[in-house]
Amino acid sequence: MKKIIVGVLGAGRIGQVHVQAMHRTARVEIKAVADTYMNDSMAKKLSQYGIKNITRNPKDIFDDEEIQAIFICSSTETHSEFSLQGIRAKKHIFCEKPVDMELDKIKEVRKALKKSPIVYQVGFNRRFDHNFIAARKAIHSNKIGTLRMLRITSRDPAPPTLSYIKESGGLFMDMMIHDFDMARFQTGSEVEGLHAIAAVLVDKEIGKLGDVDTAIVSFQCKNGTIGVIENCRQASYGYDQRLEALGDKGSLCIGNDTESRLEISSNSGVLTEKPLPFFLERYKEAYILEQKHFFDAIVKKKPAPCGIEDGLESVRLAYAAKLSLKEGRPVSMSEIQ
Amino acid sequence: MKKIIVGVLGAGRIGQVHVQAMHRTARVEIKAVADTYMNDSMAKKLSQYGIKNITRNPKDIFDDEEIQAIFICSSTETHSEFSLQGIRAKKHIFCEKPVDMELDKIKEVRKALKKSPIVYQVGFNRRFDHNFIAARKAIHSNKIGTLRMLRITSRDPAPPTLSYIKESGGLFMDMMIHDFDMARFQTGSEVEGLHAIAAVLVDKEIGKLGDVDTAIVSFQCKNGTIGVIENCRQASYGYDQRLEALGDKGSLCIGNDTESRLEISSNSGVLTEKPLPFFLERYKEAYILEQKHFFDAIVKKKPAPCGIEDGLESVRLAYAAKLSLKEGRPVSMSEIQ
Amino acid sequence: MKKIIVGVLGAGRIGQVHVQAMHRTARVEIKAVADTYMNDSMAKKLSQYGIKNITRNPKDIFDDEEIQAIFICSSTETHSEFSLQGIRAKKHIFCEKPVDMELDKIKEVRKALKKSPIVYQVGFNRRFDHNFIAARKAIHSNKIGTLRMLRITSRDPAPPTLSYIKESGGLFMDMMIHDFDMARFQTGSEVEGLHAIAAVLVDKEIGKLGDVDTAIVSFQCKNGTIGVIENCRQASYGYDQRLEALGDKGSLCIGNDTESRLEISSNSGVLTEKPLPFFLERYKEAYILEQKHFFDAIVKKKPAPCGIEDGLESVRLAYAAKLSLKEGRPVSMSEIQ
Amino acid sequence: MKKIIVGVLGAGRIGQVHVQAMHRTARVEIKAVADTYMNDSMAKKLSQYGIKNITRNPKDIFDDEEIQAIFICSSTETHSEFSLQGIRAKKHIFCEKPVDMELDKIKEVRKALKKSPIVYQVGFNRRFDHNFIAARKAIHSNKIGTLRMLRITSRDPAPPTLSYIKESGGLFMDMMIHDFDMARFQTGSEVEGLHAIAAVLVDKEIGKLGDVDTAIVSFQCKNGTIGVIENCRQASYGYDQRLEALGDKGSLCIGNDTESRLEISSNSGVLTEKPLPFFLERYKEAYILEQKHFFDAIVKKKPAPCGIEDGLESVRLAYAAKLSLKEGRPVSMSEIQ
Repeated sequence: MKKIIVGVLGAGRIGQVHVQAMHRTARVEIKAVADTYMNDSMAKKLSQYGIKNITRNPKDIFDDEEIQAIFICSSTETHSEFSLQGIRAKKHIFCEKPVDMELDKIKEVRKALKKSPIVYQVGFNRRFDHNFIAARKAIHSNKIGTLRMLRITSRDPAPPTLSYIKESGGLFMDMMIHDFDMARFQTGSEVEGLHAIAAVLVDKEIGKLGDVDTAIVSFQCKNGTIGVIENCRQASYGYDQRLEALGDKGSLCIGNDTESRLEISSNSGVLTEKPLPFFLERYKEAYILEQKHFFDAIVKKKPAPCGIEDGLESVRLAYAAKLSLKEGRPVSMSEIQ
Repeated sequence: MKKIIVGVLGAGRIGQVHVQAMHRTARVEIKAVADTYMNDSMAKKLSQYGIKNITRNPKDIFDDEEIQAIFICSSTETHSEFSLQGIRAKKHIFCEKPVDMELDKIKEVRKALKKSPIVYQVGFNRRFDHNFIAARKAIHSNKIGTLRMLRITSRDPAPPTLSYIKESGGLFMDMMIHDFDMARFQTGSEVEGLHAIAAVLVDKEIGKLGDVDTAIVSFQCKNGTIGVIENCRQASYGYDQRLEALGDKGSLCIGNDTESRLEISSNSGVLTEKPLPFFLERYKEAYILEQKHFFDAIVKKKPAPCGIEDGLESVRLAYAAKLSLKEGRPVSMSEIQ
Repeated sequence: MKKIIVGVLGAGRIGQVHVQAMHRTARVEIKAVADTYMNDSMAKKLSQYGIKNITRNPKDIFDDEEIQAIFICSSTETHSEFSLQGIRAKKHIFCEKPVDMELDKIKEVRKALKKSPIVYQVGFNRRFDHNFIAARKAIHSNKIGTLRMLRITSRDPAPPTLSYIKESGGLFMDMMIHDFDMARFQTGSEVEGLHAIAAVLVDKEIGKLGDVDTAIVSFQCKNGTIGVIENCRQASYGYDQRLEALGDKGSLCIGNDTESRLEISSNSGVLTEKPLPFFLERYKEAYILEQKHFFDAIVKKKPAPCGIEDGLESVRLAYAAKLSLKEGRPVSMSEIQ
Repeated sequence: MKKIIVGVLGAGRIGQVHVQAMHRTARVEIKAVADTYMNDSMAKKLSQYGIKNITRNPKDIFDDEEIQAIFICSSTETHSEFSLQGIRAKKHIFCEKPVDMELDKIKEVRKALKKSPIVYQVGFNRRFDHNFIAARKAIHSNKIGTLRMLRITSRDPAPPTLSYIKESGGLFMDMMIHDFDMARFQTGSEVEGLHAIAAVLVDKEIGKLGDVDTAIVSFQCKNGTIGVIENCRQASYGYDQRLEALGDKGSLCIGNDTESRLEISSNSGVLTEKPLPFFLERYKEAYILEQKHFFDAIVKKKPAPCGIEDGLESVRLAYAAKLSLKEGRPVSMSEIQ
């Protein structure tokens, strides 16, 4: 089996996640990793994987004709530009979410993709989580009948730094974007309209930056399903990632993964484990599976499981939620360009 | 111990529930049950409890000076009038919910109560459920810290008859009223504003009556907590009554009661029991406990645990939700008289 | 409906439990309670139930021709003698377990019953627990197929007093007797042989009395099923009453009941409630149900659901376990007279 | 970091498991795999991992001076001989369990190891399962206090072939050996004596081979703990691997891993997933972790986490159980050479 030659843009946290995950499959060779801010610590971590080219220059990757596929794991503002460069260089692209914070830029990528034969996959890792896949399979194989209601709960263990939040695009763009995608993934439908309420209950400093840290968005889908998404930037018990769906034949829910199935009974009660601490632990296997789908799409010349339309829609939903909160009213998706 | 002498108005389903529950306590004597539509079947059921006076005339109860306390279990449109009569007759009153569908009539009862020393309790039975009490105790004893989010899920096993729905005041007044009260009970706060979305997904006939059968209401409380209530008139797996609360120190959730703790593992998976079928089963003990609180209030001359204000607020919230749905916008509670 | 007139022998803890449970049914009148050691406190508790005759003389009950049924709730050494007196007086008998610690005395009662038309029920309350009934129903309706293995776990929250233990007949007779009966109830088979291991791990003083506080008995049934019973006199987390069964089509298990379905997630983990504290709480409804079966048997002139044979077999099994432990070898039930 | 050069003996199922697991770590190079019965299919599977030497001759591995460590994954009867050869060749050895079915041969290996500086690890994979590690940590960090009782439940999804069973050494040697090791691992104590009961309830053909398919072994440990192991060759719901421990401060239990945390509520009840199907799935990560410990021991020049003594003791316990069953009596470990 010939290996797929890969280049990675960005050697920060998520770049390392992808490199590590790729190392576990025998079908890929990571030839180069480029990061404008590449430092010794990053390089050292990468060195154990036998990567030939560790560089500060992204051009090294785009110009390398042997490289067939790129992973865009650099900071958000570079995503759309790197995407366009990658398309021009005829490389298959795995792009971390969001594709861009500007709808116009995402549309530009979309336009470029229309004439291109490459595989373009957006990094909605949760679609590859064993739990959410199990939920979707149950829904789409009619285990609970016609979907009536969907609830998505998503809570981070702790808020990111204030400097991160400042650049993040806000809770809806940075955090709830995953849940918007999940709503589309589970319902198999587009959202018709939504309404957001939110508050600053975790850290007042977040409020001073014009952002919120706790939010509830209720929504209606084109297929009739109604739903609600709950987000909070902080949960003392860890990373909380659940969902619940009601259909006419039954309901389903997805609980959190834990480190073990240990249960301790004592005078204080019966104690089981907290959810896994954060996304690196909870979605460890999901990163591997999303790569598998990407490489499968390349080899089998089929479309990626989530592409530029998914990247665009999730950002449109984040815009709608921001508008709803700002104006204190429900927003129809037709209002968002 | 001298027994409390009780008269019951209404011998339908809920009237029988109260008679049966009262029979289990040694401190009460049910002297009379009155129902304008009293029939042989009702009377026969009552006969086993040794009740002296089974009558079609409510006056028999109001005029009986020995009777100290009345249970208003008749149809909703009689609640406020019977309440006023009871207050005039100086009897302690347990009134099933809602006190009335008209805010003005509830206010009239409230006015009459201001000058009266009687105990007046409204039948929000869920406040006396062991599960919801445990949740409230945990919240109010700071087990999860300052409350950030509340979610209440309430689903009936099957919709009531269309003729019932026609007279019910609609899903918000008939069904979600319990959840509005629960939101106030758990948060210990009043609702500031709310927004409703809803759909007809269970039975189109319900829609033809101008009602909905599936609804999500998101709300903001005066204390800052935000929340969401989910209702559906039909759940194939039974009566679904849960809640979840998030605070800065942790979260809590309440699951459903089941008939037993049996778990069967087979080739199809691991099967546990459905929730108890409906409110008579789920809240069986709650009815006994709410009576206990009522009789304790009488004996100890203290206020009832939920009174006319609770009866009024829950109906105001139902009105707000109806208005929100009708006008497709968030409604502030200050808009409701 | 004519009420069944009942007399109760013994006004201690279990006698009060039965009086209270009977009070909840409309079909019974408790006419008399007799206890040789009747004191003011006992009498006061009983007074609230409107019992006419509170006495120190058991004869008052046996001689009262109006009394149709008696509850033997007095101390163990009186059970067989009261049973014989009750049979002679032609009264239906509910007798708390064990019928006697001597096999000969139980057999004497059995002999007397052979010529008597009365209903004789032994107080194996666990047979009427909603959980163990659910397990039995599942097994006997072939939900898990042919039974291969049974495991019964039974742990008390704390050991009884040393003076109680001294008179108790030892762990196998006093505590595991319930589990022996449960093994017969669940398997629907008799035990062929058993082997006991045990230790003193809770309190050395128990060992000094010649008793053990922790024990495991493995057994083989006539129908081929093999099983194991685990007992401990102390469990810090409360009263632990579970079982597990394996059949060729699946397995089942029974968990503990809890006060509520509250679950709290915090930095320490996910905490649910301990089992209900002890038998009064866990088997509260079981006492009511076992009485119902007794009264049904009287009214419908059918045999009691558990009778003198069950009373005898459980004591034989306790003897076998004692012998096995003493001689350090498996014991066949054919060795026990 | 210099890679550890490894050779693997045996390319059957367990050999492939180890090769695949090793591939996931960057610190190891698998240089050679030898299997007397190496065929094209085996070789093809191995080819994707870039292994240089795929051979039918074990000597290729023992003679290769570059190879530092060997994995003995061949059939049981070769384990002790390959171990001795490996010791002579001064290679670190990971040996699948059991080391041998003959106690004498295990002792021979033990003797050879006494004068050797190599790391020798026996493949008790369950010691590296996240669940059983969590249990052990809880016990050994005194979370449940002094251990009183241990229960281990181990059930295979389906019995192996009859030809496998014929060569397996029987249920105690082939299947319960893992549980004997687990009992030692969790209690941190040696077994003093045990008693076995067993039956043929799965397949009569197993009985005809002189083996059993369902067994219960109760045991006493030197530290006072008593315990019980339950085994069955067939469980319709999958691979059942649990344990429960009782201490003076509380109890703990370990449940099964599942593919996802999906829960479906429907008219039939609340359904969650079966345990993972078999050991490859349940212990997938455990194989990786046990290798990590082996390589750590090599690098850090410390003893393996489970060595020849553990290999010996588990086989002695299997002998004791066989003897107990044969003679129908408890067996003291002092009886086993």
